[in-house]
Amino acid sequence: MTSSESSPARQRPLDETPALAAQAAALLRNSRALMTLSEDEARQVLPFMRLTTFPKGAALLREGDGSTSSYMLLVLEGDVAVDTGGSPFSTVPISVLGAGDVIGEMALFDGAPRSANCTALSVVQAAGLSRKGLELLVETHPKVAAKLILSLAQRMAERLRALGQQLQMLMELAPPPTE
Amino acid sequence: MTSSESSPARQRPLDETPALAAQAAALLRNSRALMTLSEDEARQVLPFMRLTTFPKGAALLREGDGSTSSYMLLVLEGDVAVDTGGSPFSTVPISVLGAGDVIGEMALFDGAPRSANCTALSVVQAAGLSRKGLELLVETHPKVAAKLILSLAQRMAERLRALGQQLQMLMELAPPPTE
Repeated sequence: MTSSESSPARQRPLDETPALAAQAAALLRNSRALMTLSEDEARQVLPFMRLTTFPKGAALLREGDGSTSSYMLLVLEGDVAVDTGGSPFSTVPISVLGAGDVIGEMALFDGAPRSANCTALSVVQAAGLSRKGLELLVETHPKVAAKLILSLAQRMAERLRALGQQLQMLMELAPPPTE
Repeated sequence: MTSSESSPARQRPLDETPALAAQAAALLRNSRALMTLSEDEARQVLPFMRLTTFPKGAALLREGDGSTSSYMLLVLEGDVAVDTGGSPFSTVPISVLGAGDVIGEMALFDGAPRSANCTALSVVQAAGLSRKGLELLVETHPKVAAKLILSLAQRMAERLRALGQQLQMLMELAPPPTE
């Protein structure tokens, strides 16, 4: 994980803070997943994660940030506001996320720039997994990696459905451009 | 993979048709993926896939179909129209897909009902991977499974970005409901 030099975020190995490591392991098990990680398997992910602490008001992710920041964050503590920037006059608030939510997984998978801004509404503790960390996990613990990626893919599938429904509703509401 | 008894589709093991098996292996390697399958790895996926042949006009997937049909299809030959049904008067055409495109992967990951109709515009040959097949692949070839799921997750991340941009455009165009 690379963070810009001006970032106020503090990073350290997740293992050094046992309570947050246990919290991360519990959240990684994600009981809604179709193929869940066992407790042992969840613990095998932890050495590949970095604990990052963001002060209130700090940017966790910035829309447009490039592929040097291809990591996801599993929120362990605190609240995060997500919005797409665009012009300062058209900021569309999306949602508020908290413990157990994952942000930034799209860039983890496709390496493309960030699609939204994520801002800490309180002190936020998050476990980061970089593209490099995920690749190492695939090489060294492939079954754990497969289950973890499956559970992230499941979240994305659910978001795709929700966005698709929203889009269809809006298209039915909006007058066609030729009228 | 379960297909309804009335389906005109014909299914058989992919391995029995070497030319289409080779085509499937080539398409699975997906050179755009951040972590590509080697030729050997792609071939390890094939025994878990079923070759399905759809006559022109047949439904590959039907919107609302339930979790007994949690499989994805990798299109090997032919063209497929994708649309969301809704009422007969509000059918929104989405796109036409062809060789190398994957359909139905959302249900593979989240087991939820199909979100769109997919119809064969010509004879379509497709390699199907069921939820059960994917779970067996994770158990027996976890590294291959991890890379395959990564590449499917990458496609979903790209679609999420595209849908998110469309949605933002429409929200900026549409008048707010309170005005």
